[in-house]
Amino acid sequence: MDLAALSSGLDTFWILITGALVFFMQAGFALVEAGFTRSKNTTNILFKNLMDFCIGTIVFWLVGYGIMFGSGTGFFGAFEPFSEINHAPAGIPNLAFFFFQLVFAATAATIVSGAMAERTKFSSYLIYSAFISVIIYPVSGHWVWGGGWLASMGFHDFAGSTVVHSVGGWLSLVGAAVLGPRIGKYKNGKANAIPGHNLLIGTLGVFLLWLGWFGFNPGSTLSLSNPELVARIFVTTNAAAAAGGCATLAFTWIKYGKPGLSMTLNGVLAGLVAITAGCDTVTPEGAILIGLMSGILVVLSVEFFDRVVKIDDPVGAISVHGINGVFGTLMVGFFAKENGLTGLFYGGGTDLVVTQLIGIGAVAAWSIACGLVLFFGLKYTIGIRVSKKEEENGLDYYEHGESAYN
Amino acid sequence: MDLAALSSGLDTFWILITGALVFFMQAGFALVEAGFTRSKNTTNILFKNLMDFCIGTIVFWLVGYGIMFGSGTGFFGAFEPFSEINHAPAGIPNLAFFFFQLVFAATAATIVSGAMAERTKFSSYLIYSAFISVIIYPVSGHWVWGGGWLASMGFHDFAGSTVVHSVGGWLSLVGAAVLGPRIGKYKNGKANAIPGHNLLIGTLGVFLLWLGWFGFNPGSTLSLSNPELVARIFVTTNAAAAAGGCATLAFTWIKYGKPGLSMTLNGVLAGLVAITAGCDTVTPEGAILIGLMSGILVVLSVEFFDRVVKIDDPVGAISVHGINGVFGTLMVGFFAKENGLTGLFYGGGTDLVVTQLIGIGAVAAWSIACGLVLFFGLKYTIGIRVSKKEEENGLDYYEHGESAYN
Amino acid sequence: MDLAALSSGLDTFWILITGALVFFMQAGFALVEAGFTRSKNTTNILFKNLMDFCIGTIVFWLVGYGIMFGSGTGFFGAFEPFSEINHAPAGIPNLAFFFFQLVFAATAATIVSGAMAERTKFSSYLIYSAFISVIIYPVSGHWVWGGGWLASMGFHDFAGSTVVHSVGGWLSLVGAAVLGPRIGKYKNGKANAIPGHNLLIGTLGVFLLWLGWFGFNPGSTLSLSNPELVARIFVTTNAAAAAGGCATLAFTWIKYGKPGLSMTLNGVLAGLVAITAGCDTVTPEGAILIGLMSGILVVLSVEFFDRVVKIDDPVGAISVHGINGVFGTLMVGFFAKENGLTGLFYGGGTDLVVTQLIGIGAVAAWSIACGLVLFFGLKYTIGIRVSKKEEENGLDYYEHGESAYN
Repeated sequence: MDLAALSSGLDTFWILITGALVFFMQAGFALVEAGFTRSKNTTNILFKNLMDFCIGTIVFWLVGYGIMFGSGTGFFGAFEPFSEINHAPAGIPNLAFFFFQLVFAATAATIVSGAMAERTKFSSYLIYSAFISVIIYPVSGHWVWGGGWLASMGFHDFAGSTVVHSVGGWLSLVGAAVLGPRIGKYKNGKANAIPGHNLLIGTLGVFLLWLGWFGFNPGSTLSLSNPELVARIFVTTNAAAAAGGCATLAFTWIKYGKPGLSMTLNGVLAGLVAITAGCDTVTPEGAILIGLMSGILVVLSVEFFDRVVKIDDPVGAISVHGINGVFGTLMVGFFAKENGLTGLFYGGGTDLVVTQLIGIGAVAAWSIACGLVLFFGLKYTIGIRVSKKEEENGLDYYEHGESAYN
Repeated sequence: MDLAALSSGLDTFWILITGALVFFMQAGFALVEAGFTRSKNTTNILFKNLMDFCIGTIVFWLVGYGIMFGSGTGFFGAFEPFSEINHAPAGIPNLAFFFFQLVFAATAATIVSGAMAERTKFSSYLIYSAFISVIIYPVSGHWVWGGGWLASMGFHDFAGSTVVHSVGGWLSLVGAAVLGPRIGKYKNGKANAIPGHNLLIGTLGVFLLWLGWFGFNPGSTLSLSNPELVARIFVTTNAAAAAGGCATLAFTWIKYGKPGLSMTLNGVLAGLVAITAGCDTVTPEGAILIGLMSGILVVLSVEFFDRVVKIDDPVGAISVHGINGVFGTLMVGFFAKENGLTGLFYGGGTDLVVTQLIGIGAVAAWSIACGLVLFFGLKYTIGIRVSKKEEENGLDYYEHGESAYN
Repeated sequence: MDLAALSSGLDTFWILITGALVFFMQAGFALVEAGFTRSKNTTNILFKNLMDFCIGTIVFWLVGYGIMFGSGTGFFGAFEPFSEINHAPAGIPNLAFFFFQLVFAATAATIVSGAMAERTKFSSYLIYSAFISVIIYPVSGHWVWGGGWLASMGFHDFAGSTVVHSVGGWLSLVGAAVLGPRIGKYKNGKANAIPGHNLLIGTLGVFLLWLGWFGFNPGSTLSLSNPELVARIFVTTNAAAAAGGCATLAFTWIKYGKPGLSMTLNGVLAGLVAITAGCDTVTPEGAILIGLMSGILVVLSVEFFDRVVKIDDPVGAISVHGINGVFGTLMVGFFAKENGLTGLFYGGGTDLVVTQLIGIGAVAAWSIACGLVLFFGLKYTIGIRVSKKEEENGLDYYEHGESAYN
């Protein structure tokens, strides 16, 4: 075997194993969403998480991959059925690159099931999950990672704070808003907490997600040719998560008098989401600062949507993935220092900040527009919400005829 | 370090990490089997899953590895105690190859605990688990992977639809038949569903198995010298699993009026089992077709054994691992296209189909014969089934003095 | 890419992926500790496990890493804030080595939460967790792995039976002793069993830890330049775990009349802890013997501390990590055969045994002394134990305002 072949074997191994870790995040999302909701809807939420990956696999292979990476225009890739055209970097087999991109697409898709939990029709959810993987995610993904117009502008989103997480977050926002709140969530204009049924499972889910993020961010190098970069990404990713947890712990302790586990778990996730855009270009110190801010931001954002905007998001997906995805992407403009970028705090001027804002805004506009068309379309055709009786008695029995627990 | 040493390090890393993922399938099996059975038997089923791996580790090291890979005859390897003789491919340390083979042997062993759940004596199960790892699995494994007569014939089972899964499936069939159904399973000739106690845990188990399969199938290349092959295996494995899930979802929805999570989880597993034989040689399209068929087959097979044959298999192991192991192995004869094989659908003639049938039949005959000797032997010596009282009150208290839940 | 760069990429990949597996042990510890304790304290124990990693990440990065690896004296490294000075072996980026060391430090820290479960003030636990990662673990770690005086003497602790596990074990001993037993544990001088609430979760935790150990021990090679060594470590690690499980199974079956799952899980962990020091230098046979002994030792040790010493250790951390960490480190002196060491059983004389005893004793003295200062310091300042009312009603409500289950 020659050097080039060995290098190709090594890089293929790298993206497949990190891709497998990203796949494992599907289990993490399933546990977080199941743990943070009520036991009468557990079968339903697990089933949605399972199926969005199954359906996403088929449709992203059928057309999504080509739309995202095909060399069409700056706004749209190409219809290339069956993912047979090679879009991988040199040395990586096309199918390895496809697998890695597929698990990213599936991450965006699965975020939304949490925000829409406990009241969405199963059939409508399946249609949504096909749409995001076929068209919504691939189009904005093409802009940033497929050589599209945002890539050309210099917009920097290394592993997907905007491309993956904010897309999921914006669709969560629209989906939860179109659905309306769960029965009992708001009484006389006051938001009631509806506690999840199993915090142990939710915590395990967060650990699985944290582990999966060691695939998500470092794997996005697509190569081991720069070990320093890969190592930095491990450290910045981990540091932001830890700092997010510490900040939420302290902030909830001061604010509510007691440190809260559920919110601190969201603080960890907020740190992970926020560091994703700039994990390659910030220092560990920068990562800790971003993590600390995101751990506070997620608390304020959850309260804002819950009490002010009054959108019922059972797991906090809008705040964790949407708001912190935006925040982290913006922070690249300030904290970038390594890997060829220089942020405002290191003397880099405001250009990068502006570019980041344009990218954030464009992806938000696209996602929200798609969400409005899709979710209102579902609402006024097959319906998007289960009946009152079904919601009160739990979706598990009516939608699936199976309780999760016996 | 020279190129050969680096290549050896890379391949060793590859089979050890994929082996670790296969090890992790032990946890997946434990969760699936525990989740799909009743809470009064949870300690027992966890304990069986733990011990079959512990015992399997010792006895496969003592003699199983030599029987499987020793260069004896085409039918039997050699008694080579302590696994000290090198059977690894060039560049891989013997102990790395041993570890990889051990976790495969343990997978075959642990399949059976699900089919025999909720009524088997713990001591008898431990004896069974030693026998499969000492002799049953290694002998038929030798035929296919140890240079034996089926290998010579050109029988193709890349990662073990037949070698691993069907052996587990056939032993499940014999074990469950010899044991008889659980009390209350059949009343007046009618099969009653006995729902598992925790579908969340069962779902998590399926995600762990799916993850583990990214070790099981791609790791079976034993090398990264062909990155295209490794990448294709990731994609075919994943595609068949996803297609299996989609097919079962649709089929149960139509057949029963509601989509069922338990059965869909089995559909995913069926797709994984079925693609295992041909994951290296089918295209993604072929994998999806195989997955779709296996997702339907598993439903029909579960119903057939449950209602027609009246063998009580609490987790569907016979159908998932046995029937779909056979089905997937056979499909190689039709769908093979890459990696030097050509199936019937691509103009390859019927030879491969016939060879596949011979291999399937020979391994089935061997496994069933061993199962009959073993399980009847246990039944008429130390006994194989717990008392009626013990079964009704749960095995956890009587066999172990420990409830899983307090 | 040249050969050196490729080798650097490979080794960096190796320690980052094995480091990620060690990170995943955090989830394993959380599950074991939550499963083995009561449901009224589940939020609390999960929260402690989460926060000791979050806090540990920040403080080990701030100063712990420098204290451990800085080139100060044989007794103490250096204050090198922000972990910026390179201490990595050639070819490994400093931040990759830092990440690998961080997850080891966090393992030591998290051991203690189990021993102190169900009665410790949350704030005191957080202070403890900062101290172990800032100073306690790094100082003794420096002695052995940072080029300190025990390293100079030839003390051999390959992956941390003493450096990681015994430090956690000794601090568990002191912490549990200073805290005193849980209410209801001892009545009229008799020890009462207080069963954990979820053995399924505990079992899953053990599988996660076992998986993580395939990072912990093999990753400690820090390189793939010796594939034989890496493969041996996988096999010895796995063999000791399996043998530990088998020995505890048999021993509890004989001793109590029934095989016990909880204790057998501890037997597996005991085997893993015990093999950690010598995983590189013992043969598979040696590993099995060490595992068998540790599986019996853990039972005797748990009984000894529970009934004779009367220290209440809810999860058996003192016996699993402390006693078996010591035992495994000592066994290196007897069973060493490979990797340049020769133990007493292979004609190596008593020098190594004596050196091992000195290392064990020195680390024990340091850890116990630090534990006494720290835990008595906490006791007589902010207090270390929750109120009687809080303990009886559960820490979840009073400390966090959140039950784990609804």
